This record gives sequence, structure tokens and C-alpha cells, in this order.
Amino acid sequence: MDLSTPPATPAASTPLRVDGARLWRSLMDLARIGATPKGGVRRIALTDEDKLGRDQFAAWCAEAGLTLRIDAVGNMFARRAGSDPHARAVATGSHIDTQPSGGKFDGNFGVLAGLEVMRTLNERGITTRAPLEVAVWTNEEGTRFTPVMMGSGAFAGVFAPDFVHVQVDGAGLSVGDELRRIGYLGEQPCGTVPGGPYAAYFEAHIEQGPVLEAAGLPIGVVSGALGQRWFDVTVTGMDAHAGPTPMPLRRDAMLGAARMVEAVNRIALDEAPHGRGTVGFLQVVPNSRNVIPGRVAFSVDLRNLTHEGLDRMEAALHRQFAQIARDTQVQVELRQVVQFDACHFDAACVASVRSAAEQLGLPHMDVVSGAGHDAVYLAQVAPTGMIFVPCKDGISHNEIEDALPEHIEAGANVLLLAMLERAG
Amino acid sequence: MDLSTPPATPAASTPLRVDGARLWRSLMDLARIGATPKGGVRRIALTDEDKLGRDQFAAWCAEAGLTLRIDAVGNMFARRAGSDPHARAVATGSHIDTQPSGGKFDGNFGVLAGLEVMRTLNERGITTRAPLEVAVWTNEEGTRFTPVMMGSGAFAGVFAPDFVHVQVDGAGLSVGDELRRIGYLGEQPCGTVPGGPYAAYFEAHIEQGPVLEAAGLPIGVVSGALGQRWFDVTVTGMDAHAGPTPMPLRRDAMLGAARMVEAVNRIALDEAPHGRGTVGFLQVVPNSRNVIPGRVAFSVDLRNLTHEGLDRMEAALHRQFAQIARDTQVQVELRQVVQFDACHFDAACVASVRSAAEQLGLPHMDVVSGAGHDAVYLAQVAPTGMIFVPCKDGISHNEIEDALPEHIEAGANVLLLAMLERAG
Repeated sequence: MDLSTPPATPAASTPLRVDGARLWRSLMDLARIGATPKGGVRRIALTDEDKLGRDQFAAWCAEAGLTLRIDAVGNMFARRAGSDPHARAVATGSHIDTQPSGGKFDGNFGVLAGLEVMRTLNERGITTRAPLEVAVWTNEEGTRFTPVMMGSGAFAGVFAPDFVHVQVDGAGLSVGDELRRIGYLGEQPCGTVPGGPYAAYFEAHIEQGPVLEAAGLPIGVVSGALGQRWFDVTVTGMDAHAGPTPMPLRRDAMLGAARMVEAVNRIALDEAPHGRGTVGFLQVVPNSRNVIPGRVAFSVDLRNLTHEGLDRMEAALHRQFAQIARDTQVQVELRQVVQFDACHFDAACVASVRSAAEQLGLPHMDVVSGAGHDAVYLAQVAPTGMIFVPCKDGISHNEIEDALPEHIEAGANVLLLAMLERAG
Repeated sequence: MDLSTPPATPAASTPLRVDGARLWRSLMDLARIGATPKGGVRRIALTDEDKLGRDQFAAWCAEAGLTLRIDAVGNMFARRAGSDPHARAVATGSHIDTQPSGGKFDGNFGVLAGLEVMRTLNERGITTRAPLEVAVWTNEEGTRFTPVMMGSGAFAGVFAPDFVHVQVDGAGLSVGDELRRIGYLGEQPCGTVPGGPYAAYFEAHIEQGPVLEAAGLPIGVVSGALGQRWFDVTVTGMDAHAGPTPMPLRRDAMLGAARMVEAVNRIALDEAPHGRGTVGFLQVVPNSRNVIPGRVAFSVDLRNLTHEGLDRMEAALHRQFAQIARDTQVQVELRQVVQFDACHFDAACVASVRSAAEQLGLPHMDVVSGAGHDAVYLAQVAPTGMIFVPCKDGISHNEIEDALPEHIEAGANVLLLAMLERAG
């Protein structure tokens, strides 16, 4: 921070902290756009609600004296100038699109915590050496348009803007057309930042899991994100009448699939504590109560913190599924559909988050992110760190998603101090 | 049979047999009504196709000189007079409604084998002592209207005609209105037969299972039908993000359900050879690949040959499901939705079927029916037996359902001799 001018107000002698109440009010204000009857938010990417949410963010940025840029995939960047014209920016951000039945905090917290950092610095008359930015990444959720984390992926160069523009939703509408329609098809080339690449990127986010709550801690220092491998699996047996077909003559795709679900669970437990294995989707054909199923299709989602760990899990998956197929007289096919490598955040950024929490006297623990976040793509182009705060019962992607005001405030204060440490 | 008049033709010295080629032609002719591109039949109860099928049967009965009655639920009875005015009728029959993607043989074989018996007797100028009847039971499949085996159930007094009439399909159309529309709402009271209750009822049917084919035998002497108990099961855990939720903190409804599927299989194997356990229907909520399922609903179909065996299976189901629910931290609810008691066919009728097969030199074995049939309801009001013939790969309720002409002919010959034995 720029210490060349003396503090302008008496308040400067009190420690530098965000205004938790103001941040909470902004979260509740933004949550009105696309509010659902059950207290959640439905603000799907590039809909009218997304436009209204973006407009609200832009208006707040203007009030706070920030300069707004929009890039070719609709990412928004609100910049607060620094004192050093040659310094590279320190950034934060997240997303404001939601799941169809989403909550008030997922994404929105990271964006508004960034805005609150700017407002706090304005109030205290502090000018940092490096410029600061708050980014709103387009379509993180991937609910309407795939791929997920579209805006941050494009920023990191993983997706070309031309590729992004031609992605279509279920109704055949394209990202490019919808960006133009809502007025957020920008001019800025993807991935360029005035003054050069970000010096650092921090993202505050609700944990979306139960670990911090179970540990009773307000802050998670995120050291990295689990790698992911997703598979589509099809088990094929033979449809048959449930009554006349004796057990030994069956080729029951449901029985094979059930044993494979159990195997996925065991494979993940064998890789404790970071291994995860989930069958979230499963579909039965013909799905009639007195017909032995001839086909079951299901998904497998494997996660782990290392490439080697994922390799072990994948090998076990193939081996055990083949054995189960033999035992139950069915065929099995596996096809990998998604792969994200495990991500280790920048050691210095992680240390900044940890020391900010310590400076604030906030109990904390190191955690890994099980989910993907925009920060995972940002980590490919900038030193990156993340800050987690607990959410109620670990629930997210749900209208009842909730968080405590004191945790929201604590996370924003950690973001403030971590950004200041990096922005000088 | 009436031996008071000498045989009218030289052919009478050759053994009495059905005309297998004529029976096969009639099966193929009837299969044209509602024929599907893949070679199956779609002739759902009380549709226009069902009406055309019934009209065809009625026309064939008229050609054969049979007298037709229709009862209040649309059951059709084609009667061939006997020589003794006081004798009670010996009956056969089955159904001509099909599954949405059904085959040519299920039900149709039993009806047309009965018609072929009548034609054969006509041709040979034989008059039995007792009258003979061929019945076509309304809505055996239960695809469009529940309950299944509606017509035979009403005949047996299990369902009142008024109850049957008000059953509606998915479009809100009622059985009563649809019977009237297609011209098959009859006057005859349900369950009454001229001259008194049936002296015996035989039903020929494809096996719909793989046992006879595996044994290489053309005839199954059916000693009874398995009892059935069906359950709706709901497993409730907690939806959660697949990534951020460590394995020990999960309440995964899919894992619980998978172990219950395995338990159903084990419970049936413990009751070999007659125990059956099937999970044919399963539905996952929210069914998204990166969300740990919070709810899984599925069906359980348990079958066994004795009441005690079914009691053991049901007790094991409750006990094991409760244990699995505890182990996986989920809740489970079971609700019984269907119950059919096990059925033991009349010993004398079963013996008639067996001795007919022996008289014909046809290899046979005793089998039990795993599926429900109209004969199971008929067994409540008449001495009953069934004759099974193999079907290809044991496949039924499928457009590729198939059977060999020689097995169809063999089954009809067994029906002929068994009916003659009982009709005198």
C-alpha cells in the first residue's frame, strides 16, 4: 500500500477491515435478481437475470470509481488504479451465474467480497502500489452452456473465443448471440490485462462441502484442487421377465451396476483422505418393475490430489468392473468424458492467505478444493490462491445454501489482507 | 367323447391331432393386427387394434360354428355344445392384448390353440360329452389399465365389474367407456357360465422364461405359480457436491441402494430354486453426475413357491435393508404394493396335462410359472392346469419373442388331449 501520504482520517488508526454489514447487504441485494420462492437464486448464464445481475455489478463498480472492461467472452473486469504505472495487477473474482436451483453465495460471495475490498480501500483513502481488479467470469456453472468454467477457461487460453461463441444451449441459442443480446459481448481480447499478466489472483468462495463446519473453523486455506476423471459406463445384460427367469440364468445389468457402484466407493476409500468416488447419474432400461434390466448406464466421477492417485483409481476401476462383469454375466463399457488435472496453488499465494488469517486471529486449516473453480484455470496463467469459508451443512447448488455473516466477513477480511500484501 | 356314432371318415383311424400348420397360419394372421416393424405386435387392451383382434377371433368362431358370449368386462366365451345337457363346460383360453412392444405368441397362442382344438374336433366330427369353451380374457397385460389380469380377475370375483369400469388410463379414458366404444361391453354377468362353473380350465402359454429351452424339452407341465410380493423402496440420504464432500461425511443414497440391490439378489439365491428377487425399476434424484444422490427410489419384486418362503424373504429384506441403511447413514422406507399368493394347480388337471404329453410321446418336465397368468385367477373358481411350450431364448414381452412351429403344435396337441380327457 502507498504509505507516502499520511492516513487521512482518525479511523485509520483502527485496524483495516471490511464492512461486513455492507457486504452482506450487497449479497442480499444481488440475490433479489432471480430470487426463487424457497430463498435461492436462479440466474443462469446469459439469461435476462444474468444481464440484470451484471448491470447491478457494473453500477456498483461505477459508484466505487472502478473502470470496467468486458472481454470477448463476456468476462467483466473492474479495475482500481495503483500508484505504480508499471506494476502488474493483483486480481480477485468469481462468478454470478448460478445453478437452476442455486443459492445466494456460490460465486456471488467471491465477486462481492472483491468489491467490498475496493470499497473499504476507497473509504480509507488507500492507494495500493499495484492496480487491483475484480473479475466476473462468464458461465462458471456450465448449466446452460458447456464447457463449465467457460469464461475463466477462455481467459487462460484453454478455450478459443470462437469456440466459446458457437456453443449452443438446449434451445439452439449460441453463447455469441446471447452475449450480444444481453449487451456483454466485449471488445477486449481474451486473456490480456493492461500492464501485463496478473501478479496474483485470489478467489474467496464458500466451501461447498462440510469439512470446515465439521472442524468448527471459519477459514480454509486452499492448497490446491483435486484432479477429476469422469466416465460414462454402460452395463449390458439381457432383458427378461422377472418371474419366469431363475436366478442362475439371469444376465442382470442392475446387479452388475450395483456391484460397480459399491466398487467405486471402495476405490475412493482406498485413497483416503483425498480420494473421492461418486455415481451421481444412473439410468435403467427398460425400467419396469417386473423386467430384469437389460441395460444400465451410469456416470463415475473419480477425484484425487495427485496424478498417480488418479491413475491408481482408474486402473482399479477397469480391473474391478471387468471382474464384476464376468461374475454377473454382463458386458461393461467405460468411456472417459472429462479430465481435469490436479492443481497445486502457488505456494506464496497460499502463504499470503494463511498469514492474513493469522494476522486476523482467525482459526484456519489447510484444505483442498474438491470442486472445480475459476481459480483452477487462473492458476494456469497467474500465481493463485483461494480462501474458503464454511457453508451451512456443507450444502451448495441448492436453494437452501446458506452461510453465516461472520464467516462471510472473515473471508472478505482475509481476501483484503492477502491482496494488500501482494499489491504492496 | 361321444362314441355312440361311428367315426365318419377314414381319417378317424389315424390318431387325433391338431393341424399345426393351420394353427401357425392363424397366429401369423392375428399378428398382422397391430404388427410392428420389428416383427412384434402392439395390440394394447381396448384400443382399435384390440377391437380388430377381437373381431377376427369372433369371425373365426362363427366359421367354426361356436356360440359367442361377451360378459360385463368384455371377456369373450366361444362355446362348442356337448352331448350331455347337464355337463359343466371344460374351458381353455388366454388373452390377445399385448405389451406396447409385445410379441406374436404371449396370450395369442393359448387363445388360438383353443380355437384349433375346436376346429380339429369339428373336422373329425367329434362331439364331447361336456361343452367346450375358449375364453379371451380382457386386459391381461395391465399396460394401459391396472390391475393386470383384469378380465380373469373379474371372472373369479376378485374385482367387481363396477370397479373395473371406472379404471382409467393415462389419458383419463375409462375401461367402461372404452369397452362400449369398441363394442365389447357385454350383457353376461361376470363369472357365470351356462350349466354351472367350469369343470376344468386349461391354459396353454409360451413359457416366457429359459427353463424348457435350456432343458431341451417341448412341454412343461405347470404345477403352480410363484407367489409375488412387490415393494416400493425409497432411500433418502443427502444431496451433496461430489467433489468437496469427503467419503466419511457422505450420506449417499446411491451407495445404500446399490447394497440393497445386492441384498435382494442374495435373498433370492438363499431360496433356490424357486426364489426370485428383482430390482427392475430404479430412479435417482437429482441424477446429476457430480452430485451425490440424495434420494433413490426403486422396486423390489420377490417371488417364491410357498407362503412361508415369501415370509422368510420379506423378513430378510426388512432386516438387511435396515442394516444397510445404518451402515451407509441413510433412511429407508419400504411399502408393499402388490401381493399374489402362490398358486398350486389342481392335481387332477396337472395329471391330465402330464398324461397327454406322455400319450403323445412328448418329452416334458414339471415346471412352475414364475409369471402371473389368467389361469392363476381361474384356479380360484375351477380346477385348473397349464401347459408351457418353450420360447426362443426365453424372451417375451419383446418384439423379438419367438417360438418354434413344432413346439406350438405340440402344446396344442397336449391341450386337445387334456381337454378331451376332462370333457369325456
